Amino acid sequence: MLRIAIDAMGGDHAPDEIVAGTISALQSKHDLSVLLVGQTEQLEKLLLPVSTSIRHRITLVHASEVIGNEEAPAMAVRRKKEASIVVATRLLKEGEADGLLTAGSTGAFMAAGLLVLGRLAGVQRPALAPVLPTVDGNGVVLLDVGANMDATPENLLQYAIMGSIYAEHVLSRPRPRVGLLNVGSEPGKGNEVTKEAYSLLSEQPLNFIGNLEARDLLAGAADVVVTDGFVGNVVLKFMEGMASGLFAMLKEEFSRDLRSKLGAGLLLPGLRSFKRKLDYSEYGGAPLLGVKAPMIKCHGSSRSKAIHNGIYQAIKFIENRSGEVISRAIAEVK
Amino acid sequence: MLRIAIDAMGGDHAPDEIVAGTISALQSKHDLSVLLVGQTEQLEKLLLPVSTSIRHRITLVHASEVIGNEEAPAMAVRRKKEASIVVATRLLKEGEADGLLTAGSTGAFMAAGLLVLGRLAGVQRPALAPVLPTVDGNGVVLLDVGANMDATPENLLQYAIMGSIYAEHVLSRPRPRVGLLNVGSEPGKGNEVTKEAYSLLSEQPLNFIGNLEARDLLAGAADVVVTDGFVGNVVLKFMEGMASGLFAMLKEEFSRDLRSKLGAGLLLPGLRSFKRKLDYSEYGGAPLLGVKAPMIKCHGSSRSKAIHNGIYQAIKFIENRSGEVISRAIAEVK
Repeated sequence: MLRIAIDAMGGDHAPDEIVAGTISALQSKHDLSVLLVGQTEQLEKLLLPVSTSIRHRITLVHASEVIGNEEAPAMAVRRKKEASIVVATRLLKEGEADGLLTAGSTGAFMAAGLLVLGRLAGVQRPALAPVLPTVDGNGVVLLDVGANMDATPENLLQYAIMGSIYAEHVLSRPRPRVGLLNVGSEPGKGNEVTKEAYSLLSEQPLNFIGNLEARDLLAGAADVVVTDGFVGNVVLKFMEGMASGLFAMLKEEFSRDLRSKLGAGLLLPGLRSFKRKLDYSEYGGAPLLGVKAPMIKCHGSSRSKAIHNGIYQAIKFIENRSGEVISRAIAEVK
Repeated sequence: MLRIAIDAMGGDHAPDEIVAGTISALQSKHDLSVLLVGQTEQLEKLLLPVSTSIRHRITLVHASEVIGNEEAPAMAVRRKKEASIVVATRLLKEGEADGLLTAGSTGAFMAAGLLVLGRLAGVQRPALAPVLPTVDGNGVVLLDVGANMDATPENLLQYAIMGSIYAEHVLSRPRPRVGLLNVGSEPGKGNEVTKEAYSLLSEQPLNFIGNLEARDLLAGAADVVVTDGFVGNVVLKFMEGMASGLFAMLKEEFSRDLRSKLGAGLLLPGLRSFKRKLDYSEYGGAPLLGVKAPMIKCHGSSRSKAIHNGIYQAIKFIENRSGEVISRAIAEVK
């Protein structure tokens, strides 16, 4: 029986949508059991309509506190021992669960991974690895997007190894193409770190396709792209800001006059599908790669479907023993 | 009489559109004269229809070579002494011109600025400073976008001073709001460089508004945003890639069926205006700030209007003696 700890209290639509997504996953995966962590009284009520066969596979674990997005993550994780994300991570550490999922504070998620669970043997720095949308609809794994600000070339090499194994195991990409985010495509381009990282990556048994310019990131030219947490975070947030800015601008253009409004009405299905394609929460959650057990962070705005998908990411991670494979691959470097 | 050296051979539509934009600027600005640098024979032909009063303010300067985008910039600038960008920059250095404009290779433009013209006294690293589109239509100056890969906190401070003066003098922004691109808005966020830069920026007589997250970059929250050349280049190219990816995706949605096609037809004017808003070449050229004289780089795809606007940027730079003001401001730091 697979056991996944779910932070029921994290996210904009917690606990309702988290619980709904969990139930949906339990319905389709029969060897799955969950530890639902949060305000048990509140959660009990949400579980009232659930059938006995499903209810048997849910264990409620009480957590009296929640860590919000506005709190300083490391301090909050240290102080709030009874926060849902901390309790859930403790279950993981103690071997009560095989994986974890949250839609709560990204900072608290990373801090809990680092401070409560700890790193896999050999991993210098864990990395947060979301999937960004691509024009072809497949998505690209970008890491790191903020677990670690200043990356060394060795860190980038480890990101490449971890991201490659994740893309193969969880996203089913055979021989994932790994790119190094850089300011030009030729070798020798970039800053001191990327120049050295280029050499390191070239020497490893990865499907390294070389430098990748940011303009090709969303074109689907690679399956995995590595960069330091500062640049990755800037890119991710710039994408979010640009997408929402674009929609604001489009909306303005589309409501300018009657003709435009009529056109926009006709295009509504296309515009919705376009918006969905750009929404990277549709591509599933982001794993914190390099910690001792699978931890998945879903977007704060996640609805039940995204939670359901996030649970399946954790399942694939567990079933493929991706953590062990990562540890072994990292030990084999040099 | 203002004298501007124009690289007539650089850009996708050179020399025709470069010459057309130059003539248009000469028509509206009567104390302007230009040194048109390129294949004189070819340029003579383009000048045939020009009135004598305009023609008198054009001096042709022969340059037998051109540096392409695919060439290694520093090497090309050193070797091709007769390349149009090199000849034009030499005119600037020798005091034959007060400013320069090109739509050719960005790398060659920066290399010529650094190697042929040289830095202003006190400037550690010149910075390339394009204006990115914002939702409010005003645009934001982002620097550096690639003149210098690894920036120190002191470099970032100088970028802030130079960008602020440029925004005030050339873009007519009173007391420009200066932001530091970072991964969070609170002080203390970021990598080692941005943390230290935050303190430096706070101590100066700038209108420093603190850290700015990438998601707010296009929202118009600041007039000037500073970052190192690696991050700035990644952001710029990511924006280009995302914009073109978006249009590809929109186009697909809009041609899916008859209904969508009809809607798109009705929306055509709005979509065109939207595309224009996103096209950062519409916001004028990018200056290389910190070199001894005004140098403006227009986008490679520039048409005559963009060239005309770029010439006016150079004019404002010269008329406001922005170079002197920058030198003085930098000398006053500590």
